[in-house]
Amino acid sequence: MNRSAAEDMDRRDPLAPMRDRFAIDADGPIYMDGNSLGRPPKAVLEAVTGGLADWAGRLVGGWEDWIDLPAAVGDRLGRLLGAGPGQVLVCDSTTVNIYKLASAALAARPGRPVIVGDAADFPTDRYVLEGLAASTGRRLHLLGPGTDDETGAGAEAICAAIDDRCALVCLSHVNYRSGARLDVAAITERAHAHGALVLWDLAHSAGSVPVELDRWGVDLAAGCTYKYLNSGPGAPGFLYVRRDLQADLRQPIWGWFGRARQFEMAAGYEPAAGPASFLTGTPGVLGLLAVDASLQVMEDAGIDALWAKSQQMTRLLVDLADDRLAPLGGRVVTPRDPDRRGAHVSVAHPRAWAWCRTLIDRHLVVPDFRTPDVVRLGPAPIYTRYVDCYDAVELMAGLLAGGLDPVTGSRRVT
Amino acid sequence: MNRSAAEDMDRRDPLAPMRDRFAIDADGPIYMDGNSLGRPPKAVLEAVTGGLADWAGRLVGGWEDWIDLPAAVGDRLGRLLGAGPGQVLVCDSTTVNIYKLASAALAARPGRPVIVGDAADFPTDRYVLEGLAASTGRRLHLLGPGTDDETGAGAEAICAAIDDRCALVCLSHVNYRSGARLDVAAITERAHAHGALVLWDLAHSAGSVPVELDRWGVDLAAGCTYKYLNSGPGAPGFLYVRRDLQADLRQPIWGWFGRARQFEMAAGYEPAAGPASFLTGTPGVLGLLAVDASLQVMEDAGIDALWAKSQQMTRLLVDLADDRLAPLGGRVVTPRDPDRRGAHVSVAHPRAWAWCRTLIDRHLVVPDFRTPDVVRLGPAPIYTRYVDCYDAVELMAGLLAGGLDPVTGSRRVT
Repeated sequence: MNRSAAEDMDRRDPLAPMRDRFAIDADGPIYMDGNSLGRPPKAVLEAVTGGLADWAGRLVGGWEDWIDLPAAVGDRLGRLLGAGPGQVLVCDSTTVNIYKLASAALAARPGRPVIVGDAADFPTDRYVLEGLAASTGRRLHLLGPGTDDETGAGAEAICAAIDDRCALVCLSHVNYRSGARLDVAAITERAHAHGALVLWDLAHSAGSVPVELDRWGVDLAAGCTYKYLNSGPGAPGFLYVRRDLQADLRQPIWGWFGRARQFEMAAGYEPAAGPASFLTGTPGVLGLLAVDASLQVMEDAGIDALWAKSQQMTRLLVDLADDRLAPLGGRVVTPRDPDRRGAHVSVAHPRAWAWCRTLIDRHLVVPDFRTPDVVRLGPAPIYTRYVDCYDAVELMAGLLAGGLDPVTGSRRVT
Repeated sequence: MNRSAAEDMDRRDPLAPMRDRFAIDADGPIYMDGNSLGRPPKAVLEAVTGGLADWAGRLVGGWEDWIDLPAAVGDRLGRLLGAGPGQVLVCDSTTVNIYKLASAALAARPGRPVIVGDAADFPTDRYVLEGLAASTGRRLHLLGPGTDDETGAGAEAICAAIDDRCALVCLSHVNYRSGARLDVAAITERAHAHGALVLWDLAHSAGSVPVELDRWGVDLAAGCTYKYLNSGPGAPGFLYVRRDLQADLRQPIWGWFGRARQFEMAAGYEPAAGPASFLTGTPGVLGLLAVDASLQVMEDAGIDALWAKSQQMTRLLVDLADDRLAPLGGRVVTPRDPDRRGAHVSVAHPRAWAWCRTLIDRHLVVPDFRTPDVVRLGPAPIYTRYVDCYDAVELMAGLLAGGLDPVTGSRRVT
């Protein structure tokens, strides 16, 4: 594998023109952290700017349109996630959404004392579950760390942990650290066979990996829009509640946006029909406009094409890492089986933190560090080139071979 | 009172130059709904646009600065609310914040079976309390509607309802509908005398009415930034937790932003020190930048000057309404005592809805309708002119005298 082969792949890439739809500083470092914060689509910048103009021009009258955004943008996002209309909302943050969904699920499974999660999952998921376990008197069973703790518990270990005492199974579709991808349908089926509900965190799969919420029989899901959905720092989260569960599930934050006939402002809470009872307070309009505009760009690319390119990119990164980084102490921790990984590749190294910091400080590559020893490479197939992957690994290898800068301080990146 | 007197007041108004700091369409209708959605300060438009550029340029590296915004902008907002540093956060929505604060308060007062609120308060406050009463097995005692239900229960009725069974008193500083303002210090003192905690909703006072959270001994407070704080549709909410309560109060949404040493991403939730344990998930950066920029404009005006002008404006509106609207069936429901009202004036009329709709449809005046029969006039002293108040009432009187349009449909405005 040499650079011209990567250039060749770019020339043949049907998604190559999508890169022009993004605002990209040509002199910047190679950006391999699209799975932490995606780059801005030009259409999103225009949509937010347009939202500001709308605010100035229409003032409070703008709410006639804005009020429907959580559901309308949710429906649009639902199409990307294999969810029919009336099941997805864009609102609040991922954390608040997981809290609402998990609370509702636990209330619907009284008498079942266990929540199953994964010790390798993203912290906010684990913490929310821990809080709910404490407040509802349940036991949080976090799988792992086991033989393969770097990638999270596998489907077998998870399925073995689910039994009739289980109220809720809450897992990440794609592990934030290792990139390991779980078989959602199989685990969901196992949970349902035992009467448990499932809640899937899609933060690292929405917009990169095919998701079929309806077809997989998923009960609940949540995620964010600032990674592969490119909607900006802290853009709103989303949630999915399967249609036939909506009438029975009740979330605990009874806000005015979740009430039937909201503008009657009447006495007594009465949950709205459909997924709307999972709304809480006034939604952030600029964030919703950003998500809406970004989804247009995703639709123009098509999730199948994105996934096809993503698979080629992760294969390329694994091959390059084996070839160039392994001799220097780098070790691929992402599953080598393409059917078991998502859209990013993680490389463990004893000096991962110094490696990462030096790459960033010298404006060479922006990867992401995950404690204690992992460097994550998250190419976004919609704007990342194969040659970026090639150059990134070359630069990473060059640094390892040539020596890293001494670094101090703590890294703080979402 | 004639128009030239109002023009005279504008000429003498020391805040008159502030109007130029806002993006205002000179041909638009008279905007009297600043207490629903404030107008955009030019500095806010620039700050959001700058945030977009920062996203494009710094990408994930921007988080080095963004991560501190909830606390930093909170401290800045705290100065406007009489709160010392380390007690205010800008985060989530008002609804989610009231939920977190009220939950924490109830957990800190076990064995006390009553929550006191006001039936005339904003719906989301009542609904959140109703949900928490149900989930914690408490009774929600909503005061009123009584002899004076249009303005909300008065301080006397509220104080009489507080006793040793009370866990939490949750009230609005300024009533969203009538504009009635409560004596926060007196009610807080009464609650404390009985061992209850207080939670004040400042949505209709922050940025218009002087607030002295520390001096008044307030325990908890929350509010929004899109009304008198002019930070845009759905801009983030805020919350206040008094310093000496922070170590003991625990809110139920255990997210990664609320954990000590967040980026260790370690096992087990451990609440962060200070107010940060009341953070949840990733905050919306554009909204925080908007609030920050808007606070600069508020600081340049000064809350004392804003309040002085606001009092003159509400007096003018009450006088004009008595003079021009009362003969046509309009009735001021805002307290006539200036010490008992906030920054807006409400006028009841049997055809309030049609009146409001016609004013908006004909592009004359944008007031706000509050069910069933109230038209709210919310001048924002930072950009509204006295002559706007005069003209608005003239136009409103003219319509009532000349006949309203027939209207259909439902009104949906936050």
